Amino acid sequence: ADAAAGRIKAAACRTCHGIDGIAKIPIAPHIAGESEIYLQTQLKAFRSGKREHEIMSVIAKDLSDEDIADLAAWYASIRISVELPE
Amino acid sequence: ADAAAGRIKAAACRTCHGIDGIAKIPIAPHIAGESEIYLQTQLKAFRSGKREHEIMSVIAKDLSDEDIADLAAWYASIRISVELPE
Repeated sequence: ADAAAGRIKAAACRTCHGIDGIAKIPIAPHIAGESEIYLQTQLKAFRSGKREHEIMSVIAKDLSDEDIADLAAWYASIRISVELPE
Repeated sequence: ADAAAGRIKAAACRTCHGIDGIAKIPIAPHIAGESEIYLQTQLKAFRSGKREHEIMSVIAKDLSDEDIADLAAWYASIRISVELPE
């Protein structure tokens, strides 16, 4: 999988998920730093219909396995850190 | 919704998702800082069966609306920051 290629392909994702994986709209999840396995599983589920969403089902339909691997590699390569409320 | 109560109820989630929302196993997503709307929508989808997962479907079955609101409030209250690879 090629994270750099994924970063370019993520142009299709950035409107809702951001290039940095921080969701720009509340109904979309942050996908920054998610594991490659999780991201691939969800994209393939949207592509196969095992998981459904009015936007993601459409977007995932045209993704190849290579697209999915590259996109997952890109978003998984982003490091996240957390701060708990007091 | 009561994030403090959610933090306590998250004892049931921590094995896979962590109390801090950073996944402890690769098949589970990070849920730190996700929006309350997204978290509630997913938990209700697992509860209703609109979304299926062998573990989450079981866990969500017994969650009340209040549990879901509190858990979503807790994980949404965690602040996340990201670092892009060079």
